[in-house]
Amino acid sequence: MNAAFEWPVRIYWEDTDAGGIVFYANYLKFMERARTEWLRAAGVGQQALADGQDLIFVVTDTRLRYRAPARLDDLLHVSVEPVELGRARLVLAQRVRLGETPLVEGEIAVACVERATMRPRRIPSDLLSRLAVVPAPHA
Amino acid sequence: MNAAFEWPVRIYWEDTDAGGIVFYANYLKFMERARTEWLRAAGVGQQALADGQDLIFVVTDTRLRYRAPARLDDLLHVSVEPVELGRARLVLAQRVRLGETPLVEGEIAVACVERATMRPRRIPSDLLSRLAVVPAPHA
Amino acid sequence: MNAAFEWPVRIYWEDTDAGGIVFYANYLKFMERARTEWLRAAGVGQQALADGQDLIFVVTDTRLRYRAPARLDDLLHVSVEPVELGRARLVLAQRVRLGETPLVEGEIAVACVERATMRPRRIPSDLLSRLAVVPAPHA
Amino acid sequence: MNAAFEWPVRIYWEDTDAGGIVFYANYLKFMERARTEWLRAAGVGQQALADGQDLIFVVTDTRLRYRAPARLDDLLHVSVEPVELGRARLVLAQRVRLGETPLVEGEIAVACVERATMRPRRIPSDLLSRLAVVPAPHA
Repeated sequence: MNAAFEWPVRIYWEDTDAGGIVFYANYLKFMERARTEWLRAAGVGQQALADGQDLIFVVTDTRLRYRAPARLDDLLHVSVEPVELGRARLVLAQRVRLGETPLVEGEIAVACVERATMRPRRIPSDLLSRLAVVPAPHA
Repeated sequence: MNAAFEWPVRIYWEDTDAGGIVFYANYLKFMERARTEWLRAAGVGQQALADGQDLIFVVTDTRLRYRAPARLDDLLHVSVEPVELGRARLVLAQRVRLGETPLVEGEIAVACVERATMRPRRIPSDLLSRLAVVPAPHA
Repeated sequence: MNAAFEWPVRIYWEDTDAGGIVFYANYLKFMERARTEWLRAAGVGQQALADGQDLIFVVTDTRLRYRAPARLDDLLHVSVEPVELGRARLVLAQRVRLGETPLVEGEIAVACVERATMRPRRIPSDLLSRLAVVPAPHA
Repeated sequence: MNAAFEWPVRIYWEDTDAGGIVFYANYLKFMERARTEWLRAAGVGQQALADGQDLIFVVTDTRLRYRAPARLDDLLHVSVEPVELGRARLVLAQRVRLGETPLVEGEIAVACVERATMRPRRIPSDLLSRLAVVPAPHA
């Protein structure tokens, strides 16, 4: 059983490079789209969070392993699984797959900061409790 | 004699697509780099303009003609020539060349707006007068 | 009645810039995603076209008018309407809207070329005839 | 004494996001520009390598730590230091600084592959020996 949150990502020309494959930096974008939708599934809109509480999440650490390339027109799936839900920091395991083939795996750490100062802030507790129980979209 | 302001742009993997050539949307980035350096040559820092007077330039119209492709490792030159220096709006002719070969030509219109409201604002007059006499970098 | 083909595009952090709005060059990406899906709705896969017949579409002309900005989390809709279906060239009218608010309008011309040589080629006639009758996705 | 190879990178609007800072995925682009110039300083042109020997370098692992943000108009410096020069794989330590302030640090592993098949290939020995002695650009 796969209970992780997953989000589909289609590959367009903009995502590829002259090697004929997806440019590796773009997987960070795909993983962020999936994190954004995972937050949205928990009822968290980041524009609203920034406007209402001046809080944004910033990435502090990334670790990615690239195992196989994707190409134009491929339909990928990107998962999000919380590894650590801290008071001011989240660590998420993320995987990108094409069908059953794993393409990229990684861990992304994000910190909650005040936008105006970039200083660390506690994640609002109601938000944290909702993140602990994000439903998988197709489970 | 070519008295237009010019800025060099090197092509990296990030700029290319699976067609083996530079992804066409990226020429808008190259043209913006050249406009930014043209402003800088006139003594205008955009971060300072935004911080100090809450003014930013936003693009309102673009028209581009693509004549020949660029490839990885190419060293392009991007020019900026003012066509219209209005009170709240600039129109710039821009060309991208590889050696003597023209690759892309276009016209870009930008408006001066207040960042907070996105409403049109007059371009500070000292800034306008400096733009009228930007020196070409290698003339 | 709006019979144009439309494709939804969600705005993520990757799409925005420090002005707090969507970076203007990215609308070209959104329009290309819509064109790709319009081709796909006509049964045309571009990777298959490149692999099978060595044909790719390259953009030759773009003209865009930016009327209002989009922001993080916005859900846009991008339309595609053929203006000209030529033997070796397509001209498409494209619009981006947020709800009923028009954001960006433009015309994009693309040419069919042989990938190896970048020389113009006739668009396969079966492909052209299918493009003339692409169904709108939600009509 | 700092003998690492360094490359300057200016921050433009295209590099920023709505948080007002550089979008974190873009540091991978900056690091690649520096690696490309480091290769070029060793006499290695990647387009020529691809055309002549069908060899490209693909990224297999990235690990980045983000310590402080950069903003519009900042002039960054990106370094490259070989950690491992293997037969088919390179590991490089890379740092991004703004003046004396470290912004991002990371390790990037790249593999040499045949473009047509994406299979690992030995790095040409003359190329490897030149990489061992790349001069720092301003040492």
